[in-house]
Amino acid sequence: MNIDNKTDLKYRDMRKEEKGKMAEKKMVEEITSMDVDFAQWYTDVVKKAELIDYTSVKGCMVIKPAGYAIWELIQKQLDARFKETGVENVYLPMFIPESLLQKEKDHVEGFAPEVAWVTHGGLQPLQERLCVRPTSETLFCDFYKNDIQSYRDLPRVYNQWCSVVRWEKETRPFLRSREFLWQEGHTAHATAEEAQERTIQMLNVYAQFCEEVLAIPVIKGRKTEKEKFAGALATYTIEALMHDGKALQAGTTHNFGDGFAKAFGVQFTDRDNKLKYVHQTSWGMTTRLIGAIIMVHGDNEGLVLPPKAAPVQICVIPIQQKKEGVLEKAYELRDILAKSFRVKVDDSDKTPGWKFAEAEMRGYPLRVEIGPKDMEAGRCVVCRRDTREKLEVPLEELEARAGELLETIQKEMLERARAHRDANTCTAADMAEFERLFQEKSGFVKAMWCGCEECEIKIKEKLSVTSRCIPFEQEQIADTCVCCGKPAKKMVYWGRAY
Amino acid sequence: MNIDNKTDLKYRDMRKEEKGKMAEKKMVEEITSMDVDFAQWYTDVVKKAELIDYTSVKGCMVIKPAGYAIWELIQKQLDARFKETGVENVYLPMFIPESLLQKEKDHVEGFAPEVAWVTHGGLQPLQERLCVRPTSETLFCDFYKNDIQSYRDLPRVYNQWCSVVRWEKETRPFLRSREFLWQEGHTAHATAEEAQERTIQMLNVYAQFCEEVLAIPVIKGRKTEKEKFAGALATYTIEALMHDGKALQAGTTHNFGDGFAKAFGVQFTDRDNKLKYVHQTSWGMTTRLIGAIIMVHGDNEGLVLPPKAAPVQICVIPIQQKKEGVLEKAYELRDILAKSFRVKVDDSDKTPGWKFAEAEMRGYPLRVEIGPKDMEAGRCVVCRRDTREKLEVPLEELEARAGELLETIQKEMLERARAHRDANTCTAADMAEFERLFQEKSGFVKAMWCGCEECEIKIKEKLSVTSRCIPFEQEQIADTCVCCGKPAKKMVYWGRAY
Repeated sequence: MNIDNKTDLKYRDMRKEEKGKMAEKKMVEEITSMDVDFAQWYTDVVKKAELIDYTSVKGCMVIKPAGYAIWELIQKQLDARFKETGVENVYLPMFIPESLLQKEKDHVEGFAPEVAWVTHGGLQPLQERLCVRPTSETLFCDFYKNDIQSYRDLPRVYNQWCSVVRWEKETRPFLRSREFLWQEGHTAHATAEEAQERTIQMLNVYAQFCEEVLAIPVIKGRKTEKEKFAGALATYTIEALMHDGKALQAGTTHNFGDGFAKAFGVQFTDRDNKLKYVHQTSWGMTTRLIGAIIMVHGDNEGLVLPPKAAPVQICVIPIQQKKEGVLEKAYELRDILAKSFRVKVDDSDKTPGWKFAEAEMRGYPLRVEIGPKDMEAGRCVVCRRDTREKLEVPLEELEARAGELLETIQKEMLERARAHRDANTCTAADMAEFERLFQEKSGFVKAMWCGCEECEIKIKEKLSVTSRCIPFEQEQIADTCVCCGKPAKKMVYWGRAY
Repeated sequence: MNIDNKTDLKYRDMRKEEKGKMAEKKMVEEITSMDVDFAQWYTDVVKKAELIDYTSVKGCMVIKPAGYAIWELIQKQLDARFKETGVENVYLPMFIPESLLQKEKDHVEGFAPEVAWVTHGGLQPLQERLCVRPTSETLFCDFYKNDIQSYRDLPRVYNQWCSVVRWEKETRPFLRSREFLWQEGHTAHATAEEAQERTIQMLNVYAQFCEEVLAIPVIKGRKTEKEKFAGALATYTIEALMHDGKALQAGTTHNFGDGFAKAFGVQFTDRDNKLKYVHQTSWGMTTRLIGAIIMVHGDNEGLVLPPKAAPVQICVIPIQQKKEGVLEKAYELRDILAKSFRVKVDDSDKTPGWKFAEAEMRGYPLRVEIGPKDMEAGRCVVCRRDTREKLEVPLEELEARAGELLETIQKEMLERARAHRDANTCTAADMAEFERLFQEKSGFVKAMWCGCEECEIKIKEKLSVTSRCIPFEQEQIADTCVCCGKPAKKMVYWGRAY
């Protein structure tokens, strides 16, 4: 039964009353409205939901318990999906000797301008300076060179969970910071076909993970030559659309062919007794996924977490908790729910109004309210964070109903995100339309492209948008390139990116 | 039924025959006997069991899948024990600005000589150089300074899993490397008593974890002033004895009092409305635990893993696997066992002899052998890694028996390690006995101490041993200090340390 704005005035009134107090005492500081200033809203949410804190180390952040717990859930579920496909975890050093970084020409050009250099160890200057890994292709090649001898040693499907450093000038929590957490998979295969298969396989793992766990729909496709990873033959990406219409690259997979193998001498003796170069891939997802969750699902009350990525799925809030039996009942409900869900009781001495606002700010998918009158009636009130819908639920049905509701929320959050994405995806057949669309609003615009980098650069300069990907699902919007008018080769997704 | 060296000649003979082949073809390279050269034996085991590999980065190692999977099991079980005591995980930056490191005098003196310095970010020199964290007390203080305002914010019981860097001159895999993985807990409390309680609580968590999961018995105690952590009021330690009689510090916890809080200005408003300094602790365990597992339990055939820290608990080895139905039966057994245990089938094209030797090298607690004759008789052969005892087990009893055996192995490994430790722990009442004991062999020697650093240094110089700890369980071995003859204050464990 939906009671929002209809029945059971006790709750509505109490909330009003409490909200009054709240405003009065400024108990919960207001966050900027996302419609007024999306960037400020984002910053407010990451701070007020206590996901991060700033530090004395410029461009680096502290990931606080509420933020790190989301990352732990991402790690756990992504790692399980990796292992199902035969991935094994390893750990390689965080330092790369300069000579090693320089072995692959494109790679060093791409990364050298943004690495941090260690020049002294202890009190001595180092003979050769070391960079703090911005990514570990070079280290994996150096390792595989000795580790791989025969076709029997292949494939190698290794991954590591670690932090990497890129000396960015402009930083934003989760989206772009000088140090961030990620996983980086690095594989070596006997054939080009197998490497390509793994590249696509991991892209699919990423896409499914985003949709099934984070409730974020993504576009799968290939990056253009201009946008591909430094040293890769081909880069594939999953692109998500944020609430403000900007695009976010949520994960990438790279096929290196045998380029790195040749630069590093990673060879194996094949079944035919011939010495051959391995074919390699790499793939990564980072803590920026937490930024994506915030920007896809959040609203003006704060964070909205999809149940599968929510460290607390249900928050039980006692009403009039000093009255006899209320706290005990709240703990009892927690104990029942904790068998199947991640639950907490907010038994702090704050007012219910504060607790409601805080539960909303922190994005807990469900809130369960229990007070003396509820106890008398043998029921409680359950409130969904995503729709803010309120339901009366008999206590004996709570566990089952909570499970159904969490599933519904997970499903509907994905559906809403997909509907938003689709509503903000347009097609442009010519340049005039293309310009008009990006003048009016942000979003994805699908347009035809001749395949030449010149047009890509022109579009970027003119519209301040970048090619997000050449999607696997192609459509024939027009016959000619949106920029030069020459015959089109591919349809491309364009957008403003984080 | 124990069939080793008695019945069922088929297996014994086959193993002999296979072992013959093995030696002939040098299929499994020999490891150095631990009695001949323990250090070389250790190095051989970490390499041959494929736990690590060396790298181009001096003093750093690659932790390979078999090694990293042990670390994952350590992490998972230790983290669960942490969370039971209210610990929350966070992530702080890997860089410490030089000015921040210098705020606590003793701390910077202890660590500055062994840190790596970042001096350039991208193409620019940094205005202030940053060290790569050797430990994060200074960063946590800098964070807590803003994060903690009121008594309501206390206690803070945070932990992070990360890697740290200490520029060691001599390195050994897992035991001492320039970069290593660890967890570091950092807590802040309203009172000195609470900080002391947490310091001891975490030491107990560490000790229980070592005994219950790693099957390593430890001595709990306090470090002397000379051996305590740079900047701590008191350091507590758990000390384990390796197979060669050397001591290994397996984990430490530190009580900082309010020293760091004063240096960094970490204050809170207490219930009495007065501004007070917090009391802090920190505690850490590292990948050196893997070194401890190797050196406590390993033997001349390689690694011996306690079941609770074994990534593969049971290895099923098909005998005559090309015969009809054998491989299928091996997979069937795996599927049955996999419901309760971590299992693999070695279905490679190597000979059974090779597989046996490899399973032993890798330290799998149980090996299950299944061949055509076993299938006919409705049984299999189960071999314990720790005792190398062989048992015939009816197939329908395999799951239950495997569970019992793994429990027995876990229990008996701890008992054997404790018996070894006790057999190598002596007491010395005077200097002559003290010297004689360490001349004869390594091990722990318990001796009385007057409490002055001069004697501690003299003993170190004379016997090349260090004080391991002042154990919580004190004994009155003599009335006078083993070194100076003055009245003794404490009994101390002494030993040669890794």
